[in-house]
Amino acid sequence: MVPSPPPPAAATRPAFARWMGTTNQVTRTFLSAGAIPGLINLGGGLPDPSIFPTGRLAEFARRAVAEHPGEALGYGPIEGLAPLRDAVARRFSSPALPLTRANVLVTTSGMQGLDLLGKVLLDEGGLIAGQYPTYLGALDAWRPRAPSFRNLMLAAPGFDAEAALAGAQFAYAVPNFSNPTGRLVDLETRRALVAAAHRTGTWLVEDDPYGTLHYDGAPLPRLIDVSAQAAPGESYAGPVIYMGTLSKEIAPGLRIGWIVAAPAMIEALTLAKQGSDLCTSGVTQRVALSAIETGLVDEIRPALVALYRERRDALCAALGAHLSEWFDWEVPVGGMFVWALAKDPGFDTDALLTHALAAGICFSPSSVFDATGTNRRGMRLNFTLNPPERLDEGMRRLGLAVAAYRHGRDGA
Amino acid sequence: MVPSPPPPAAATRPAFARWMGTTNQVTRTFLSAGAIPGLINLGGGLPDPSIFPTGRLAEFARRAVAEHPGEALGYGPIEGLAPLRDAVARRFSSPALPLTRANVLVTTSGMQGLDLLGKVLLDEGGLIAGQYPTYLGALDAWRPRAPSFRNLMLAAPGFDAEAALAGAQFAYAVPNFSNPTGRLVDLETRRALVAAAHRTGTWLVEDDPYGTLHYDGAPLPRLIDVSAQAAPGESYAGPVIYMGTLSKEIAPGLRIGWIVAAPAMIEALTLAKQGSDLCTSGVTQRVALSAIETGLVDEIRPALVALYRERRDALCAALGAHLSEWFDWEVPVGGMFVWALAKDPGFDTDALLTHALAAGICFSPSSVFDATGTNRRGMRLNFTLNPPERLDEGMRRLGLAVAAYRHGRDGA
Repeated sequence: MVPSPPPPAAATRPAFARWMGTTNQVTRTFLSAGAIPGLINLGGGLPDPSIFPTGRLAEFARRAVAEHPGEALGYGPIEGLAPLRDAVARRFSSPALPLTRANVLVTTSGMQGLDLLGKVLLDEGGLIAGQYPTYLGALDAWRPRAPSFRNLMLAAPGFDAEAALAGAQFAYAVPNFSNPTGRLVDLETRRALVAAAHRTGTWLVEDDPYGTLHYDGAPLPRLIDVSAQAAPGESYAGPVIYMGTLSKEIAPGLRIGWIVAAPAMIEALTLAKQGSDLCTSGVTQRVALSAIETGLVDEIRPALVALYRERRDALCAALGAHLSEWFDWEVPVGGMFVWALAKDPGFDTDALLTHALAAGICFSPSSVFDATGTNRRGMRLNFTLNPPERLDEGMRRLGLAVAAYRHGRDGA
Repeated sequence: MVPSPPPPAAATRPAFARWMGTTNQVTRTFLSAGAIPGLINLGGGLPDPSIFPTGRLAEFARRAVAEHPGEALGYGPIEGLAPLRDAVARRFSSPALPLTRANVLVTTSGMQGLDLLGKVLLDEGGLIAGQYPTYLGALDAWRPRAPSFRNLMLAAPGFDAEAALAGAQFAYAVPNFSNPTGRLVDLETRRALVAAAHRTGTWLVEDDPYGTLHYDGAPLPRLIDVSAQAAPGESYAGPVIYMGTLSKEIAPGLRIGWIVAAPAMIEALTLAKQGSDLCTSGVTQRVALSAIETGLVDEIRPALVALYRERRDALCAALGAHLSEWFDWEVPVGGMFVWALAKDPGFDTDALLTHALAAGICFSPSSVFDATGTNRRGMRLNFTLNPPERLDEGMRRLGLAVAAYRHGRDGA
C-alpha cells in the first residue's frame, strides 16, 4: 500500500513552453473588458447578433440531427463532409478556376485554419512575410511555432513583392478590408503579390473573412483568381491558399471555416487537422450546408451590408466630431474596422487604453497587431456591433480619455 | 501593369515542417479503409450509431438556437459557456474534490485537449512519460511539438513510478481501459503514479474517454480523486489534469470534451485555445449541456453498457474459435478494445494488415501505438461498432489472413 501523497509543490513543476511567455498582456486586458458594466466595446470584431437568422438556423439544426444522424452525430471525414466541401468548391469556382472537393478542407473556424497552416509550414524560427499591421488572431495562432516575421508594407511606395516574399515559408495577407486597417489591397498590388508567389514558389495565404462586406464600389478579383489566370481552366495547384468563414456572413457560433488550395496542401493540412480535433462537428457542418444550399447566406447579405454601411458612416462622423484634433483615419470601403493613427508619433495607445476603459470605451491598440508589440501609435475601432448613437457616445468618451491621457503624460 | 505570372513551380516551394515527415503510413492506410466495400472495420474506436438518441438531440439542437441565440450563435468565452463549465464541475466534484468552473475548460473534443496540452507544455524535444503502448491520437496530437518519449510500463513487475516520472514535462495515462490495450490500471499503481506526480512536481494527464464503459466489477477512484486526498476539501491545485469527452457517452459529432485541472493550468490552456479555435461552437455546447442537465447521459448508459458487454464477449469468443493458436489476449473489464499479442515474437502485424484488408477485415496494428513505430507484435480490435455475427465473421477472415501472412512469410 502506497502512503497518501504529500501536498503538491507547484513551484517545482516543469516550465510551460517558451512561447507562453511571449503573449501580449494588452490582449488579455482587452479580452476581459466585456465584463465591465456599461462599457461600449469597439475592441472585438463582433457581428451584431440581431442579424443572426435565428428561426431558420434553429430549424436547420433540428433537421441536421433528425434527418442526417449518421453525419451529424458520428465521426466524420477529417476533411469535412463531402457535400459541404462540394458546396464550397462550387461557390469559389469560375471557368478559370474549376475547383473540386480535393481543393477544399472544412475547418473548425477560420482561426483553426491559421493554426493548421502554422503546423504544416513552420518549424521554430520559420519566416512569415505578413501584411503589416498583422491580424492579432494570426499572431496568436502562430506563436506556439515561434516564427520570425518580415513585415509586408503593401501600401509603401516602391513595394517590391518579390524581395518581400523571397525566402519566407509563406506570405500572409488580408486583401479585402484588412484586419486591423480596413484597407483594400489594390489590383496592381494583388497581381504583384501573386506574381511574386509564383516566381519565388512561396505559399501565399489569402485570408478573406470580410470579402462579402463590401460597402462602396465593386469587389476586386481574389488572389486565388489572379493566380488561376496563370493556368486557366486547370485543376488548381498554385501557391495561393484561400481562407474563408461563415462567422461574418451568418454566425460565428457555428465555428465553420474553409481552406481552398492545391490538393497537396489540402492533404498536408488534413494530416495536421487529424491531430488537432480529428473532424469538425457534423451538426454545425450540416447547418452550414443548409445555410449555403438554401440561399440563406445570399438572402441576408443586403440587409447586413446596409446595416454595417450606416454604422461605418456613423463611426467616421463621430471620429470627426470628437477626435479629429488628435487622429487621422481613412473611411474603409468594407469590412468591420476603422484604423485611426495618432498625429503625434509619440502617442501611446496602450497607455490610452487604460484611460479609455475608465471612461467606458474599449478599442484594440496597435501593439497587438505587431509581432514585436512596439507599435503604439494606432488603434482599431469596430463599427459593426453598436448602433450609431452608441458609436457617437463611444467617440465622445474616447475624446475624454485622450484628454486624461494627455493630462497624465504631460503632467508627469 | 504587372504581366501574367508564370505557372507555379511546386518543386521550389518551401519544405513542410519537419514533423510532417514522421507520420505513420500505416495510420493513413487504416483511416482510408472505411471506403472498402464489405469491409468489417475493427480499426477505429467508433460507437454504434444505433445508440445515438437522435430525437432528443434534434430537439436539443433546435432549442439551443431558438432559445439561446446569443450563446449558440455568437462568439462565446474561450473557456466555454459558464453553465456547461459548472455542470462539468458538479459532475466530477466530491467532498474531497470541490470543483468550480475555474477548474474546467471546454474543449472541441478530447483530441483538442491533447493538442492544447502539447502547446502549453512542450518545447521541441520535451520529454513525455507515456503509458505504453500509447494512444495513437495522443501521438498524432503531440507530433507537431516534436517531443521525446519515455515509455511507462505500468504493469511491469517493480515499476518505479517516481523514476519513471522524474524530469518529464508531463506523464500521460489512460487508467480506465487503456487505448489500445483495454487494461484497467490497478489501485496500487494509481496511487503510486499520483504520489510520484506530487513528489516530482510533474503534471500527470489522466485521459478518461472510456470511464463510464465499465462491464464487470466496480469503478476505481480516478487519479484526480486520489490526488485530492492529499489536501481534501481544498480548491484543487494539484498536478493531475483530467480529460473527458461526450464522444463515447452520447455522440462524437458534438465534438465536446473537457479538461478538469488546477486553475493555473486551465488559464494556460485557455491561452492556447485562444489561438487554436477561439471558442467551441455554442450550438454544440448548448446541446451537450441539455444532454447532461436533463439526465439523458445517465439514462442511456445502462443500455449502452449492456450492448457493448455482449459484443466484448462475442469478440473474445470469436478470437478463441479462430485465432487462439496464434494470439494471446485478456478479456477487458471495460472500454472498446481487445488487445491481441502474437505468440511468435517475430510476428509482424503491419504485414498482416495488408492480408487482412484483402480478406475484408481491418484492425489497428501495434506500430501506430508506439512513438518509434517499431512494435509489430500486437493489434487492437474494436468490439463496439459491429454486432456479434459480424465480429465472428471478422475473426474468421482474420484467421484466413494469418494463414496467408504465414504462407507468404515462410514461402519467402
